[in-house]
Amino acid sequence: MELEYVVGIDVGGTNTVFGIVDARGTIIGSDSIKTRAYGTEVKDYLDALAISITQLIETYNVKGKIRGVGIGAPNGNYYTGRIEFAANLPWKHSIAICKELEQRIGIPVLLTNDAKATAIGEMTYGAAKGMKNFMLITLGTGIGSGIVVNSKVVYGHDGLAGELGHFVIRRNGRPCGCGRKGCLETYCSANGLARTARELLETRSDSSLLRNTAIEEITSQTVCQAALAGDKLAKEVFDITGRILGETLADFVTFSSPEAIILFGGLAQAGDLLMRPVKKAFNENLMRVYKNTKLLFSQLSGADAAILGASALGWEVTRKQRE
Amino acid sequence: MELEYVVGIDVGGTNTVFGIVDARGTIIGSDSIKTRAYGTEVKDYLDALAISITQLIETYNVKGKIRGVGIGAPNGNYYTGRIEFAANLPWKHSIAICKELEQRIGIPVLLTNDAKATAIGEMTYGAAKGMKNFMLITLGTGIGSGIVVNSKVVYGHDGLAGELGHFVIRRNGRPCGCGRKGCLETYCSANGLARTARELLETRSDSSLLRNTAIEEITSQTVCQAALAGDKLAKEVFDITGRILGETLADFVTFSSPEAIILFGGLAQAGDLLMRPVKKAFNENLMRVYKNTKLLFSQLSGADAAILGASALGWEVTRKQRE
Repeated sequence: MELEYVVGIDVGGTNTVFGIVDARGTIIGSDSIKTRAYGTEVKDYLDALAISITQLIETYNVKGKIRGVGIGAPNGNYYTGRIEFAANLPWKHSIAICKELEQRIGIPVLLTNDAKATAIGEMTYGAAKGMKNFMLITLGTGIGSGIVVNSKVVYGHDGLAGELGHFVIRRNGRPCGCGRKGCLETYCSANGLARTARELLETRSDSSLLRNTAIEEITSQTVCQAALAGDKLAKEVFDITGRILGETLADFVTFSSPEAIILFGGLAQAGDLLMRPVKKAFNENLMRVYKNTKLLFSQLSGADAAILGASALGWEVTRKQRE
Repeated sequence: MELEYVVGIDVGGTNTVFGIVDARGTIIGSDSIKTRAYGTEVKDYLDALAISITQLIETYNVKGKIRGVGIGAPNGNYYTGRIEFAANLPWKHSIAICKELEQRIGIPVLLTNDAKATAIGEMTYGAAKGMKNFMLITLGTGIGSGIVVNSKVVYGHDGLAGELGHFVIRRNGRPCGCGRKGCLETYCSANGLARTARELLETRSDSSLLRNTAIEEITSQTVCQAALAGDKLAKEVFDITGRILGETLADFVTFSSPEAIILFGGLAQAGDLLMRPVKKAFNENLMRVYKNTKLLFSQLSGADAAILGASALGWEVTRKQRE
């Protein structure tokens, strides 16, 4: 049988990266364009994206062998194939990106949001290979999630399922960008962790390496470096963040009884600093019947994960057509 | 085409009720046996159940027209077909009820737990007819749930999904029967509501009709009657319970973005006393993108719901065999 490939596209606020991926999850070639270089009219962006993808396909001599294209994008809706008013993208209206791109490149295109794309990536090439039921939690600037039930991503009745970053864990807690208060992501995202560090520094007087940085410039990386250097307060910030996350993940298990919860993204890269308190709180708070639920880190490498995740959706195009 | 029927069996702590149901959800005949009349050995119970079902089928002259049997039971596991160590049932071991009953009556049998059976009942005959994505919440002595995604109940990797009554909503809150603290059902089940009433009565001194009842004898019914008679404290108990439930349900939506959440069970029968504060808190706490999510009461009548819910699983036997 002839080799087949998919194309994965990750639409980010700064760059749009894309690559050709084989069935084993190897990126055989990739490229990128600047998302914001084409103004607020999406047509020029789509033209440039289509030309660059076509060139990449010709360069790697795989024309006619691409089974499908998958796109991961903020606010990408699987059902409608549209990017709906994404705050971090330059286009302020709803974009029918699947239809528009299909017309330009002549290959079927599917779309989903970034966290769901990553979940499909983990299932196809990563830590969730062989699992039919798992949850993927992305710990970045915010918190996203992709929930897989019976080998399928849960989209809900309108494509908007899986917003676990906006589960309220502290009634009247920290203000969230969504307009509500106390959402999980205000505590356990990279930003939430930095926020906890700033709170501790402001309300306490014990010494800390973090006091060498202007308080408004403290990020999750600052805290991570200080913790790795043995700073007590910085380690406490990871302990607090990890405990809240572990407690909450233990409750999330009651929804879909997943085989595993997989952590992905910038904050997950803090490794044991985060995972140790998360695992402790997770195991202490899990209902007894769920005691075998695994807590894992992603196996997709950070740089490639966005392309791999989106590309995995490309194989689904194939399955959909064959059904 | 000849008419087809299913049999629904609800295994309760006191009675096991069962009935023959047609495709429109009409119970054409029903009967029951006492769950505890056969000692702790399950064999005699199963023999009696099989004989009674066979008699019912003969009485209504539908032999050969039964497509499947569905059982709803506490701790009933869909995957294994076994009732696993249910605290309220007389058999203290794991019961292979599907296999045992199939052998006795010669009709395929499927099993699930009571809340999931009710969800299938709502989808087949009730408020969720035509919906592909919804959540069913049972408000009884405890709180159970059945989550439906893409027209299928979410069972999880081991059949144990959908224990939303044990989602922790108050860290270090009220002790729960599961061994943990602060589970939703310790606040918003019928027992949780009575517990809130007792707390208010003990910590405050304002007058209330509820003070005419010995505090340990106060149940959700006592509180409901007092509230209907205009008692201020009793109404406040419903307001508190409803607010906590509404806030929590608003968060549950982030998981699977259901078209509706449907409330079922004893406490749901309090009607507007409960629904008004639930709806208020639900709408106030819902993330904006989910604003169209409906909150509904069950349309299955209480007395028939258990048989109907279980029977709906009987149609699934048919679908499974035809696949």
